[in-house]
Amino acid sequence: MIPEKELIIAPQDYSLLTDLYQLTMSACYVGEGIADKPASFELFVRRLPKNFGYLIAMGLEPALEYLENLSFSEQQIAALQKTGIFANAPAKFWDLLASGRFTGDVYAVPEGTAIFANEPILRIEAPLWQAQLVETYLLNTINYQTLIATKAARIRDIAGKTAKLLEFGTRRAFSPQASLWAARASLAAGFDGTSNVLAALQLGQKPQGTMAHSLVMAFKGLSGSEDEAFKAFHTYFPTATLLIDTYDTVAAAERLSQQEAIEVTGVRLDSGDLVTLSQKVRSLLPKINIFASGDLDEWEIERLQKAGASIDGYGVGTKLVTGTPVNGVYKLVEIDGIPTMKKSSSKVTYPGRKQVFRTISDGLIQQDRLGLATEDMRETEIPLLQLVMKQGKRIDSAETLDNIRQRTRNSVATIPKETRNISNPNLFSIKVSDAIKEAMI
Amino acid sequence: MIPEKELIIAPQDYSLLTDLYQLTMSACYVGEGIADKPASFELFVRRLPKNFGYLIAMGLEPALEYLENLSFSEQQIAALQKTGIFANAPAKFWDLLASGRFTGDVYAVPEGTAIFANEPILRIEAPLWQAQLVETYLLNTINYQTLIATKAARIRDIAGKTAKLLEFGTRRAFSPQASLWAARASLAAGFDGTSNVLAALQLGQKPQGTMAHSLVMAFKGLSGSEDEAFKAFHTYFPTATLLIDTYDTVAAAERLSQQEAIEVTGVRLDSGDLVTLSQKVRSLLPKINIFASGDLDEWEIERLQKAGASIDGYGVGTKLVTGTPVNGVYKLVEIDGIPTMKKSSSKVTYPGRKQVFRTISDGLIQQDRLGLATEDMRETEIPLLQLVMKQGKRIDSAETLDNIRQRTRNSVATIPKETRNISNPNLFSIKVSDAIKEAMI
Repeated sequence: MIPEKELIIAPQDYSLLTDLYQLTMSACYVGEGIADKPASFELFVRRLPKNFGYLIAMGLEPALEYLENLSFSEQQIAALQKTGIFANAPAKFWDLLASGRFTGDVYAVPEGTAIFANEPILRIEAPLWQAQLVETYLLNTINYQTLIATKAARIRDIAGKTAKLLEFGTRRAFSPQASLWAARASLAAGFDGTSNVLAALQLGQKPQGTMAHSLVMAFKGLSGSEDEAFKAFHTYFPTATLLIDTYDTVAAAERLSQQEAIEVTGVRLDSGDLVTLSQKVRSLLPKINIFASGDLDEWEIERLQKAGASIDGYGVGTKLVTGTPVNGVYKLVEIDGIPTMKKSSSKVTYPGRKQVFRTISDGLIQQDRLGLATEDMRETEIPLLQLVMKQGKRIDSAETLDNIRQRTRNSVATIPKETRNISNPNLFSIKVSDAIKEAMI
Repeated sequence: MIPEKELIIAPQDYSLLTDLYQLTMSACYVGEGIADKPASFELFVRRLPKNFGYLIAMGLEPALEYLENLSFSEQQIAALQKTGIFANAPAKFWDLLASGRFTGDVYAVPEGTAIFANEPILRIEAPLWQAQLVETYLLNTINYQTLIATKAARIRDIAGKTAKLLEFGTRRAFSPQASLWAARASLAAGFDGTSNVLAALQLGQKPQGTMAHSLVMAFKGLSGSEDEAFKAFHTYFPTATLLIDTYDTVAAAERLSQQEAIEVTGVRLDSGDLVTLSQKVRSLLPKINIFASGDLDEWEIERLQKAGASIDGYGVGTKLVTGTPVNGVYKLVEIDGIPTMKKSSSKVTYPGRKQVFRTISDGLIQQDRLGLATEDMRETEIPLLQLVMKQGKRIDSAETLDNIRQRTRNSVATIPKETRNISNPNLFSIKVSDAIKEAMI
């Protein structure tokens, strides 16, 4: 029905969306005859963002779509040649680009899984030039969607299972596509809906929303009243949530409680002291849903709850979809069977192709052991990284949002309570296997 | 040559990229017979982001492309109907969507102009339903690009006219489209180039870049050496900047200073104490360009300069393209000729269609007077908002990046020095005209 699916997912024409050096290094690999050497790169974060105790892995689906679609058209190649940058590049480089597709294997942590610092979210095993070339796009999709999913999971964790959580960030998201991806990641990590119509339709969801101050102001400007605005809106949307803070929140609630012309099901408060206002509105309209919005995040929601606010749902926008990023990196860990590591000032990379062996008992993560992919697994351990693409072909079709949402909920529940704290969480320390330590000597 | 222009600019298929309530309110306006009332909305920020003394207006070009392309296909309308949300909406609403285009006028501050809080960046004068519907997309494009342009201008201001500034943020940008828009906004506001190949080609620029640690690690893993990696890369890219911090920065610089196999033109330092390292590298390789990267922003660049680092250029990524947003809002200021204002708790909107009258003398802004658009202008005043679209048609074709970059440079130069401070700037206070004050009573 909606043909724009590619706006969320499929990155056709995105093959040139990469840093220049990925292409120049690939040309160098071709010239030196090492472009097809088997290489493994892993994507992980060295440190969690401040106040984050865990991350929710997200963004794999667009990453796989990108890898499946990677190719270079004649026009793209001609445009690269025209820059003059590749004047001394080997001619074989152009043949490789023209015929090249992604033919590697991908191991990844399923979307919705809780992970910690230094645990690979994804590993690419592919000919060196391919594994190099895809770095920029993979980091872009996984860094951003993991950030949004993690924030959404934290907000869900604080707000509680029954609170209605809506994603309202489109106007503040960093580009239209960012708003679509933010909607996907937050719904997959526990939000109930999004106000973004295109995102909702693409994701098979019903878009959500209330009304804006401008409707009330337009009626008032045209010699009408706030109440007439409410009444008019309910004529066409009989169960709509009414925004009651355009002029005087409590006065508006009082008038609504004294009329019978419309049946009020819910109101939204977008400004003022939400604690006091929500309590006053509750006493006037005890049976309706009270919905809050306005620069909310996990800390503000926690503060409102502790202060005794009477709120059934939250619209979260700006602070969900913007802010300090997840700084994932993508590092070469093995070339032609030989483990590699970088040792520059304070930035050490664990060598070799790795696996995360997780032990869960009594419903909680007891240990995450970072080992080599080739190590034997103990009976109690679950491997987090799974083969999701073999020789450039996906193993399974895309997961449903519901699946990912369920996995997120279950995975967050296994994180120790003190690691789930939204401020100064206890950082979960992972165990590095002896085999890795030996490889580092 | 490159057919992907629409990835940066043209928002075809983006007509449904809006908050649901824009559509439900439009349906209500149709039902009440007020959809075609002339309405004016203005886009502005109430407060500048922390530590920002000014904003550089950016994002108008994609906004105008969006307005020119706004339309709803049969498929899109059918998808909306299928949600069930509009079951009670007036039938005429669908006719309006099916035939509707943006037919309004747009007044805007040219891209690259410095502005302050409460000054309109853009005003839409259009039939109410159209002016309402476009809110979400306009805010999205202008909020984000204005943020990036402002950061880029601040970094240019600190780094100085001759420093080479490259945008390296693609891997950390919030979606691929965000990386394209970030490249555009930073180049338009004073950066010299971007590593994003697609963005550079779309913008008619040459993409820029150096090399990554993985190239050195790959050679080392394949029983080669760091020096062999440098030599190989220079075979194909003879003037390439070499990344020398993979293992030991100073040792690498020493070896490069003692060889003649390749002519070194520049090196990049991406980790460690950039002050000391840059000084040591300079003493070993006095004639080359030293390029720095790694979590840089305007504060870090200032710190490096004050500490005596010897650096010729900076690659700026994460902190340029992510972070705290510009929180622009879009408010109804006039309906059917009647000025409107919102008065809810501490969020006052100045009523009426406004103009910013700027007085510049001795090369500096002396006064910004926020007046009504209908007020007389004084002889020394320049009006910042200009008519850029008339009845849905653009007045002029798109500006070149060079034009916008020039305007940014000139405009920043007119801002008082203490308002250009990157920390705790002196907030420039604008004068509100008597006519506006009268309208507020």
